[in-house]
Amino acid sequence: MKASRRRGGPALGFSGLFGRFQHPAQVVVGVFALTIGIGTLLLKTPMATSAPGSVDWLTALFTATSAVCVTGLVVVDTASTWSAFGEVVIALLFQAGGLGIMTLGTLFALLISGRLGLRARLLAQAERKALGAPNLRRVVRNVVLFTLTVEALAAIVLTVRFSAAYDHDFGRALYLGVFHSMSAFNNAGFALWPDSLTRFATDPWICLTIAMTVLTGALGFPVVFELWRQWRHPRRWSVLTRITVGVTVVLLVAGTLIFLITEWNNPRTMGPMSDSDKLLASFFLTVMRTGGFNTVDLSQLNPSSWLLSDLLMFIGGGSAGTAGGIKVTVLGLMVFMVWTEMRGYADVNIGPRQIPATAQRQAIAITLMGVSLVAVSAYLLVVISPHMLDQVLFEAISAFGTVGMSLGITAALPPAGHLLLIVLMFVGRTGPLTLGSALALRERDRRYELPKEYLIVG
Amino acid sequence: MKASRRRGGPALGFSGLFGRFQHPAQVVVGVFALTIGIGTLLLKTPMATSAPGSVDWLTALFTATSAVCVTGLVVVDTASTWSAFGEVVIALLFQAGGLGIMTLGTLFALLISGRLGLRARLLAQAERKALGAPNLRRVVRNVVLFTLTVEALAAIVLTVRFSAAYDHDFGRALYLGVFHSMSAFNNAGFALWPDSLTRFATDPWICLTIAMTVLTGALGFPVVFELWRQWRHPRRWSVLTRITVGVTVVLLVAGTLIFLITEWNNPRTMGPMSDSDKLLASFFLTVMRTGGFNTVDLSQLNPSSWLLSDLLMFIGGGSAGTAGGIKVTVLGLMVFMVWTEMRGYADVNIGPRQIPATAQRQAIAITLMGVSLVAVSAYLLVVISPHMLDQVLFEAISAFGTVGMSLGITAALPPAGHLLLIVLMFVGRTGPLTLGSALALRERDRRYELPKEYLIVG
Ligand SMILES: [K+]
Ligand SMILES: [K+]
Repeated sequence: MKASRRRGGPALGFSGLFGRFQHPAQVVVGVFALTIGIGTLLLKTPMATSAPGSVDWLTALFTATSAVCVTGLVVVDTASTWSAFGEVVIALLFQAGGLGIMTLGTLFALLISGRLGLRARLLAQAERKALGAPNLRRVVRNVVLFTLTVEALAAIVLTVRFSAAYDHDFGRALYLGVFHSMSAFNNAGFALWPDSLTRFATDPWICLTIAMTVLTGALGFPVVFELWRQWRHPRRWSVLTRITVGVTVVLLVAGTLIFLITEWNNPRTMGPMSDSDKLLASFFLTVMRTGGFNTVDLSQLNPSSWLLSDLLMFIGGGSAGTAGGIKVTVLGLMVFMVWTEMRGYADVNIGPRQIPATAQRQAIAITLMGVSLVAVSAYLLVVISPHMLDQVLFEAISAFGTVGMSLGITAALPPAGHLLLIVLMFVGRTGPLTLGSALALRERDRRYELPKEYLIVG
Repeated sequence: MKASRRRGGPALGFSGLFGRFQHPAQVVVGVFALTIGIGTLLLKTPMATSAPGSVDWLTALFTATSAVCVTGLVVVDTASTWSAFGEVVIALLFQAGGLGIMTLGTLFALLISGRLGLRARLLAQAERKALGAPNLRRVVRNVVLFTLTVEALAAIVLTVRFSAAYDHDFGRALYLGVFHSMSAFNNAGFALWPDSLTRFATDPWICLTIAMTVLTGALGFPVVFELWRQWRHPRRWSVLTRITVGVTVVLLVAGTLIFLITEWNNPRTMGPMSDSDKLLASFFLTVMRTGGFNTVDLSQLNPSSWLLSDLLMFIGGGSAGTAGGIKVTVLGLMVFMVWTEMRGYADVNIGPRQIPATAQRQAIAITLMGVSLVAVSAYLLVVISPHMLDQVLFEAISAFGTVGMSLGITAALPPAGHLLLIVLMFVGRTGPLTLGSALALRERDRRYELPKEYLIVG
């Protein structure tokens, strides 16, 4: 009776994930696991710590995972625990993680488009134009160029400010500038002060530079690339760019306003600040939904602000960028799906494009995976720790969304809690991408209707 | 460029919800709103209260909504606030609500099947057998007969027990027996003791009778009807019955075991009980995920037990039954959808049937609606009340899932919180049903593949 046909083409699904090595999903998981392994070994050496002796294995594994997955959650204070060598290792790990996620995300986007392109040539000339075969070398070159350019610009501003306005000599200012510009662009959230960037809360030079760098990394390479080339022609933007920019702007404006209103009179956070500093702090807090730095004590926010952060962190940034979460594309697509359903249309159209069922299924799969993972993790953390739901939910979503913001309870969790966060960071980083690509790279029957765009949603 | 075709057939979608009056979704919303209105007026009369004067409008509206939506959340103690007349009004309201939801749910199920049947006759003989045109009078008669039979049986057991083992004369025992059997079958959760059924925590006669009655109502009329007729032939069961029974059994066993383990040593709940009483209390607590009675002080459970209850309450009971939540059919279907996706098949098959895309979209729409509603409500409750997330989340899910279990904070919420819970109860009761039917009753293109079953998921 089970006459359901197996989809044609190579078996690139979950079943293929373990049976064949050449699947892109395996490449992602393998590369990340390997890099974390190397990082753990390096951070475990006595050379990596400032005090004599070395950290325990769990601390090394947690820190390496947090760095490679560009999260920024820590179980030991970064600046006081690690030596200069240790800090450089951490910086290289999050640089590798950021480059990896951008390169692989961009490649998958092109692979999906290219695959479509091959079939489309047989169907319609119109579809061929926007597409090109993926070119690994060109993609890596462009991603590296983009990364170094943005990081260099941010590092220059930060270095000048650190050396001019604070008590740092030029060498130290340069070190701090480069480290934090890398950390910001990769949305890594690692900072060399125990209270993150709290001391710079009212310094717009530092805050806005960090925020803009985080935002650039979070938008994702394909979107920034398209914005760069088509800045003056929004009508030519792809659906990916439209959704990413649209949802990002809505989240930034709404988040800033709500934080501003709810924290305005909070004496332990923004209450004592001037009005313009309040605006700066609220904007910074909103951007850090992916970045992971903080300029106010997060544990002193109103509980409703934790919930708003939970939502923002869960959504995360753009596809093929350094931010985590389920991605703004997934949220935007689901909003359009609901809107389409409400109006009674059969096809989900965004602008002049129809979104194929594949992308819709990916969006739902990624969201369900995220909600289930976070729910189960929060439950387990409530069981094994003395903390309240508000608090463990914040840390779990911060780990899943590879955000790195913390209410300060991560370090105090029992080892089982640290292992859980390690798993969450790893799955949160690799899951949406591999789930998105694994589902999207399956061959599907398709009829020719409107020209389609294979929107990536991971 | 917007060439998306509008689906054929009458416009029965959300847009039709306000444009035409004959849509089933409007009938549901209208009937429930009207009944709540009448109930509010009756409960506002001075005759309805035991003390002189009458309750305020918000209390009357809240109580009427809670009764008609068979929830059981209260802002005033039922037994001490209301007169005998008031109690009878409340009982009639939840009886009307229960009958309404079962009748309308069953009719929609038949409508969806019948609609399919009409088209199926042109396509395949095989599909016609299981279907029949909806017959309003027969459905109402069967539902009423079913309701009265189960309630009468439960009332007899309860009355005998109340009069034999407790200090009640026969008249009072009969009154209590009838009220609580009605409340149990309709999953209404209203009890005539301020601490619900806590005094009967170790009385298996009362607890098991209430639990079985709640379960029968929660399974839903179509499933109980099929189980009654096909008890010995599970292979002939419809997909609806298979999913409902399967998921219900899994939830009951898993819920009972986890509550048993986590509350075993809790001195404020089950700690002092004997082992068999612990088992009884854990089972009762699990069943009450839809029923709303309690035999332990819910506010004294471990926070992890609140979270488990949150999950169970959100899932709820069976379709076309008196329980609320997103329904076990929706959960079961989504599990199968994920399983199908993981194996790389295109069609979702359960047993010998293929589940159409319509049902899958409904399941997702209902779940997303539920998650969004609960999340927004919990956020608002955190803002307007001094309570922790754990607590407001519990009350919000209890209202959305029309469960009625409470950590004791509902009564103390500000008026805005009461209005929010009223909206949650109303949408939680009518939303999944109307959303399910509105989407399902749309005409869809369909190709003939395996014989399909139009599984209802609301
Ligand atoms: K981060
Ligand atoms: K109830």
